[in-house]
Order: sequence, then structure tokens, then C-alpha cells
Amino acid sequence: MREITADQLDDVARGAAILGTGGGGDPHIGRLLARASLGEHGPVRLTALDELPSDAAVLPVAMMGAPTVMVEKLPSVEQIGLAARTLADYLGRELTHVACAEAGGVNSLIPVAAAAQLGLPLVDGDGMGRAFPEIQMTLPTLHGVRATPMAIADEKGNRTVLDTVDNGWAERLARGATIEMGCSAMVSLYAMDGAQARESMVPATLTLCAELGRLVRSGGVAAVVDRLGGELLFTGKVVDVSRRTQAGFARGDAALSGMDGDAGSDLVLRFQNEHLVAERDGAVLASVPDLICTLDAETGEAITTESLRYGQRVAVIAAPADPRWHSAAGLELAGPRYFGYDIDPVGVPR
Amino acid sequence: MREITADQLDDVARGAAILGTGGGGDPHIGRLLARASLGEHGPVRLTALDELPSDAAVLPVAMMGAPTVMVEKLPSVEQIGLAARTLADYLGRELTHVACAEAGGVNSLIPVAAAAQLGLPLVDGDGMGRAFPEIQMTLPTLHGVRATPMAIADEKGNRTVLDTVDNGWAERLARGATIEMGCSAMVSLYAMDGAQARESMVPATLTLCAELGRLVRSGGVAAVVDRLGGELLFTGKVVDVSRRTQAGFARGDAALSGMDGDAGSDLVLRFQNEHLVAERDGAVLASVPDLICTLDAETGEAITTESLRYGQRVAVIAAPADPRWHSAAGLELAGPRYFGYDIDPVGVPR
Repeated sequence: MREITADQLDDVARGAAILGTGGGGDPHIGRLLARASLGEHGPVRLTALDELPSDAAVLPVAMMGAPTVMVEKLPSVEQIGLAARTLADYLGRELTHVACAEAGGVNSLIPVAAAAQLGLPLVDGDGMGRAFPEIQMTLPTLHGVRATPMAIADEKGNRTVLDTVDNGWAERLARGATIEMGCSAMVSLYAMDGAQARESMVPATLTLCAELGRLVRSGGVAAVVDRLGGELLFTGKVVDVSRRTQAGFARGDAALSGMDGDAGSDLVLRFQNEHLVAERDGAVLASVPDLICTLDAETGEAITTESLRYGQRVAVIAAPADPRWHSAAGLELAGPRYFGYDIDPVGVPR
Repeated sequence: MREITADQLDDVARGAAILGTGGGGDPHIGRLLARASLGEHGPVRLTALDELPSDAAVLPVAMMGAPTVMVEKLPSVEQIGLAARTLADYLGRELTHVACAEAGGVNSLIPVAAAAQLGLPLVDGDGMGRAFPEIQMTLPTLHGVRATPMAIADEKGNRTVLDTVDNGWAERLARGATIEMGCSAMVSLYAMDGAQARESMVPATLTLCAELGRLVRSGGVAAVVDRLGGELLFTGKVVDVSRRTQAGFARGDAALSGMDGDAGSDLVLRFQNEHLVAERDGAVLASVPDLICTLDAETGEAITTESLRYGQRVAVIAAPADPRWHSAAGLELAGPRYFGYDIDPVGVPR
């Protein structure tokens, strides 16, 4: 894919919401923000990772906070560019490319809006190949890229720049700032050059998002599972959702009662913005770092954790994460034990 | 006073602790930090407010957080200059003068250490004429000076720069950052030019601190009361202290049982880092914005709120604040109602 036009936004948002594994923000909001920016500034050029010049100045942008809050406190269009400009000023560098820190309904589309506003090309890739809830959980961290200097901007115009001793401290201080700013803020972080981006990012994520979006429309759940090399874990009806906004995250559980071939079984999903673990009748079926996605059983559209509701008929699928997440360092950063589950990761056969 | 030498630090710290009204940090810590810096870099030149060139670049520095924590988590000497350098870099300006944001045992001495380290003169003045617990509570705020851009640095090397829409938001975001950094951090804020400093700061605070320090040694409580134009409110023994570290502040109450002429009466002091209100037998004797100070009844040495202990014999004195604090805007910023006491300020006759 060479550019993103307004016509493609629906598919990109739809596909990105799948890779968001329940988090990464509501695709409808992402679409609205990107549409407003593309309407004003025109299409956004995409740069493939392997075409990035080594001396490119790449700046990922994202929304940070609790997705439950983001659906009520929408970011302003001005805010989207503010975080990027604040960081560029701090770095004293001319930016050459915008990028996605993660994949997700909002976090794949905010960079589209930012790139349009700033008149810059967008890197076709992202820093995780999925969404994760904490800042340090990126492949660039595994490759030694610093998350800071990092800029945080809220919708009122308040700005914070962090420069921390490691990426864990970036998460801690940014989370505190985000909470004070009302549990959602725009961030710009992991500034890197083209060589670092080529080495550490997941290639072609936006192209994949657009393709997944088209597959949802043409083939529903089965087509998505097939394209991701994943598996259908469970089909069931949502019978209970418990969620709380805690420490700046949307945390909770959803219980599903099986339908069709899964009748008589129960599935529990545990999430922190993103789905972390899926347990069938008490046994773990899948866990981070692999992707666990909740899709509408009929249409295949992703359902984010903040949109899960009683009575929805849901297909829960799992898909393999970028292999680097299964390295020892990757698991330390975002494996089940980091999130407090004393289990080895349960993956998808590949 | 034209300069501060190592010999004068004891008196400056002693006097500053009195103006700190129970807060502003432990004078012993302030003295240690300043002594280390002066030992390495030599005396610090003082610039009187009315001698400041209009285009001077003045940068106040301070310690922020809960004084109860500061006595256990000492700042490193490197950290002191870090906040100032971070802000100077952000502003892209060459600093010409360091200044005191407030008066207090630590916060009058940290700027001495910073000025020595940075090789800059120190302004003989401060932003309050006393200590107050929150960032926006300064005379520069009353004169329209912005608290941000503001830098915050911790002892690990983490740095945050804030740029906020008003000084209330600076307090809110800085407090959150300070809490994450462990309830104490070094800050640099209220960058201003010489003209703004001359208009908005309280003149000659450091000279006053040194003089108060000498008076403590020569004349004890009575000499201090006389010099400040204040009054002795109460003499008594500390019979109870309740304190809690809450929302990043040291909050609490101290109860005193009267001695000598005050035998048979009780006094309660309520504090948030600094003393806010003194109540004798249930009636308010003194309140913010005027100064309420706890001194050792025999030596006249200030006792900070975190050092109040059962059995201490204490003279509680009150002294008039800078008259600007009694304006409508001053009272809105730091009068008793701001702190939740539904009373008009009870002042010292002047």
C-alpha cells in the first residue's frame, strides 16, 4: 500500500481493531479523527520500513490511557499534532516520518491524522505488531531504543516532556501524568532514526490492517483467522463483564457462555486494556504475548474490551505474536508472569 | 549582604527555617547541601532585587514534596543543578541568576547550592516571603508570571518538563510527578526576567534569614518576634502529633498543652507541610496567609512540622505576611478558605 486515502480508513480501522486485541482504542473514534485530518490535508503517503533512509527522523505517536475514558473524552484534532511538535522542539530535530507505536483502532489511526496534519509520510509498520497496555512493552525496547524523550499533551493544552533513565520509568511517570490529565492523553515517544526503525519495528502493519478490514467484509471470522495463521478458540455469548478504571488502565474480566460447538463450556477473558489471558473451564487456552481477539461472531468486526456488553455473540480467536515476543527478553517484558499470571505462555501452534 | 560564605550558612539556614513556618524543609539538610557546594565552588554572590538588570534570566530552584520524606531521601548534589540545567536547555536561554522560590530551611539553601554549582549569582529575595505548600502560591503568580516551563528532576536522573495552561495545572501535574518520583524531587520553575523579578519577588529575604539566624543565637524567641513585628501566641508542651503523607504532602495536627502564662489552655496547629491555622481552646488565633512558626521555647530554633515530637517545649509565634498576600487575589490563592477552613484570615496586628 502506497498511501492511505479517506476511502481506505474504514478498512484500516477495522483491521487495526483486530490487531488491538481488545485494546488500542475504539476504531470508530480513530476513523473520525483520521477522516477529519485527511479531509483537510489529503491522503497520507506510506513509507515501507525497508525503504526508510537510515538517517530518517521517525516519531511514533499514540493515545495513552484507559480506552473506557477515551470513548467519552475525545481528543481534539489540535492535540494530535501538539505532542509530536512538542517532542520535535525538545529534540531540536526536523521530523521526517510519523509512525505507529502500536496497532489498534485508535492507535493505528491517530498517526494517520498526525501525519496528515504535519504533512509527513507515515511508516508502514508499528512497534508491537499488536497492542500492549504499557509503554515499555515494545519491540524497540527489546532493541535498546529509548522511549524518552517523550511528550504528553492533553486536550486543554497542557504538555509534559519526560526524559527518564529507562523505559520502565517512562511508563511510570507517563502513567501518572496521564491519570492527572484525566486518564487519556496524546503521546509521542520512541523517537528513532531509520536504521533503528527498520531493525526494531514490525513491517507492513498498516497494509495488513487494510487487508484484514477487507477480509472481515468478505469472509468474516474465518477469513481473519486464516489470514493471521491463528485459531478460533471459542464461540459464546457474553454473560458478564466486570471492569474498573484502576491505576489509569481499564482492567476487568468478561465471562462467555459457549454456543454451538462450545455449548456447555465457559470462557473467561482477563484484560488490562488488552486481553491478557483466555481460560476455558478454568484451563488457560491462550495468553500474552500472543494475540487474543474478540470478534462479533456474525460480522467478524472486532469488539474492544470497553465495548463488551451482556448478550453479545462473540468469536474469540488467538493469533501468533511477532516471534521476538517469545524470546526470553520479550516474555520478561510482556509475558503472562509480568501481568501476574504464574503460567508459561500458552501460544498458538505455528 | 553581598555574598554567602560557608561561615554564614548556619545563620541563613536557622533564619530560613523560621520563615518556612514549619515547612520549607529541614534546615540541617539545607545546610549540608549548601556546605558541600560552597566547599567545592566557593562563596555565592548575592544580587539585590533592585540591582537586577531588566533583561536578567532568573531561575528559581526548590525542592518539592513532603518534608517528612526529604529527611530520609536526601537529594544528591548532582540533582540540584540538573533541574536548572534541564529548564535552561528547554528555554534555550543562558541563565544569569538563580533565585529562591520560597523561604525555608531547605528551600533557601538549595538555591545557594545550585548557584555555587552553576557559577551564577543568587538573587537576594524569594517568591513568597515565607513557605507555602503548593506551586501556584507565589507572589509571581499574583503578578502574572507563569510557573511553567518547569523542570522536575529526581535523584535517579529522571527528568520531567511541564508546560501548562495555568499555574494550578502546574501544581497538579508536578505533584503527580513528584509522588511517582518518591514524594520528593528537585524543581526549577517561574523563570522570569529581571523586571518581573523586581516587581513580583520579596526583597532581601536571604539577608533577613542571616539576621534572624544571628538573632536566634543572641536573643532567642523574643528577638525573633521583635524583628518580624510579630507576636508570641502561645508557649506549651507538645502532647500529640498526628501526621500522614497524603497526596504528596505532609498533613497533620499537633496539640500543645500550655505552660507558664498559658497553663490550662491548649493549642492545636493544623499543617499541610506548613502551619495553616493555630487554634487556642477552639478559637482561631492565627491563620494563613500570615506566618505561624514553631520555635524551641528555650533556644528559639525553628522546629519544622516533620520534627515536632512529644514533649518538646515550643513557642508558637505569628508574624505578618507580605501585604500582597492579604489582597483579594492573595487570599484566594492562599487564604484559609483555599485550605478548607471556612473563616476569614486571622492576622497579626501591624
